[in-house]
Amino acid sequence: MNALAGRPLALIADIGGTNARFALTDPATPAPEIIEPRSLVNAEFASLQHAAEHYLQEVGAQPRSAAIAVASPVHSEEIRLTNRAWSFTRGELKQALGLEHLSVINDFGAVSWAIPALQSNEYVTLYGREEAPLAGPVSVIGPGTGLGVALLVGDPQRGWNVVETEGGHVSFAALGDEELMISRWLAARFGRTSTERVLCGAGLSHIDAVLRTNGSAPHDAALRDPATIVKAALEGHDVAARRALARFCAVLGSVCGDTALIHGARTVMIAGGMVPRFIPFLRSSAFRERFLAKGRFAPYLESVTIRVITHAHPGLLGAAVAAHAATHQESAR
Amino acid sequence: MNALAGRPLALIADIGGTNARFALTDPATPAPEIIEPRSLVNAEFASLQHAAEHYLQEVGAQPRSAAIAVASPVHSEEIRLTNRAWSFTRGELKQALGLEHLSVINDFGAVSWAIPALQSNEYVTLYGREEAPLAGPVSVIGPGTGLGVALLVGDPQRGWNVVETEGGHVSFAALGDEELMISRWLAARFGRTSTERVLCGAGLSHIDAVLRTNGSAPHDAALRDPATIVKAALEGHDVAARRALARFCAVLGSVCGDTALIHGARTVMIAGGMVPRFIPFLRSSAFRERFLAKGRFAPYLESVTIRVITHAHPGLLGAAVAAHAATHQESAR
Repeated sequence: MNALAGRPLALIADIGGTNARFALTDPATPAPEIIEPRSLVNAEFASLQHAAEHYLQEVGAQPRSAAIAVASPVHSEEIRLTNRAWSFTRGELKQALGLEHLSVINDFGAVSWAIPALQSNEYVTLYGREEAPLAGPVSVIGPGTGLGVALLVGDPQRGWNVVETEGGHVSFAALGDEELMISRWLAARFGRTSTERVLCGAGLSHIDAVLRTNGSAPHDAALRDPATIVKAALEGHDVAARRALARFCAVLGSVCGDTALIHGARTVMIAGGMVPRFIPFLRSSAFRERFLAKGRFAPYLESVTIRVITHAHPGLLGAAVAAHAATHQESAR
Repeated sequence: MNALAGRPLALIADIGGTNARFALTDPATPAPEIIEPRSLVNAEFASLQHAAEHYLQEVGAQPRSAAIAVASPVHSEEIRLTNRAWSFTRGELKQALGLEHLSVINDFGAVSWAIPALQSNEYVTLYGREEAPLAGPVSVIGPGTGLGVALLVGDPQRGWNVVETEGGHVSFAALGDEELMISRWLAARFGRTSTERVLCGAGLSHIDAVLRTNGSAPHDAALRDPATIVKAALEGHDVAARRALARFCAVLGSVCGDTALIHGARTVMIAGGMVPRFIPFLRSSAFRERFLAKGRFAPYLESVTIRVITHAHPGLLGAAVAAHAATHQESAR
């Protein structure tokens, strides 16, 4: 692969629980490009270092910098992954791979970094002009395994910056009797109710269990899988599933509205694996009504563009954008 | 005032409802300096332009740029002030004062801009190391006439930037029966309950009325002035006032915790006119307990520095910092 030899490429990676995606990017190009992507099966490698070395040998590259997205907190020197054998310290990984610069970013932060680089066929505009350029601040809200929340500040001229947050863990503001019942049931089970407890896959399962039993579900009640609930709701025959998904959409609208208000956002991007599966259902739900139901701030919220990310793997793209940003911030100093 | 003649000074101002504070600053100095401050009585001038002209004539300055803080939204060309006769358009004011550059910032945004320039005797550290340098992101939360919320991002090296938000208007997350009672009473009266409805001067009056009547206060009930409630609570003999102020502090703790989580904050700065009056009461209240009561995120929140701004007029200082930032951003392009 001598074509790669002369270029100052950076290693990028998105490390999931089962697979690790590796690629290269050229931080000198204006738009982040993903070069030689490969997906490796984690179980086949003893450590992240071994997997990265295997990839670099295969493509014949010797990068001096890397940006790696991982599904864990990234604020300490030692990064503990869900797959513990793959845990690493920044210093050791830098040394082993011969890197001068290593950025480790949270996987949801990576999704946020990807947003300025998304093509128009990689998201769906729910509200606002389809062709409108990305306007910051951008609230990024992703229900999935948990509820990711991040903030993207900046603009195309001065560049973008991601503020990682723990916004999924704010106290849940229930509205109306049904949400109060859900909130109380979750608080009795988990000690308190954060918005994440409602707005994630397990949250949908819990909403379904609570609503089907009018709040009397025991805490060890058998739960339906969130994918099963979504499928049943979309097929239309299952009234309980439709009711659970409708409540999920209503709460998502309220939380997106609150997040836009407290981020001063001009754009809301919905990320995560769940919402792309039921976009038409979301459109016809109370999502919009609840998003706007913030008193005299409805006109401001009406002007906020709302989009759903449909790109299948934004993490690797986000690592590429982060590698670009790191390079340009250093050269600007 | 020939001493001012050769320097490229900027006009700075903080326009309140009754008084307008004017001064000059030299954007070329490293730290924002406030030069020749004067307070004018709004009623003595037909317009902001006339007041500014009067000030500039008095000090003998002809600035080419200005940063003006106003208590109103600042996103449109026409700025509508509470004192309507003083409303102005950016273009007309620039022309009338011979300015090349005019920044108009929201008064709470101005308080946020002031934060990096505060001296250590202009704030009180409630939690965290007193001598710790300012660490961003910073959540700025100010209960007063309303509830201001802003976000300060950046660092001392690369500079700071203020994100203005409408975070006072997010849905209120009531915890426990007493807060649910307050939330329902406010929703019945105002249509919905935002955090601002609870956490402002009028909010304290409403909490007091609701708690004294166990939720049965009519919506036109006579309200006690918030300053009266604070005074009575601090004097100690008035159990109802103490209970109202204690609830206010508990809710403030919960809202500060949620805001820190969703801003990814490392510092919370409490601004506004109310809190500096009862700092010892706040320290012995449930504020801290509620700030930390966010499940497994307590350790993160324990590491967040919490300070109360005690500077009497941070608006003018903030305008000076904004004038500096505008100058340096332009010269960096």
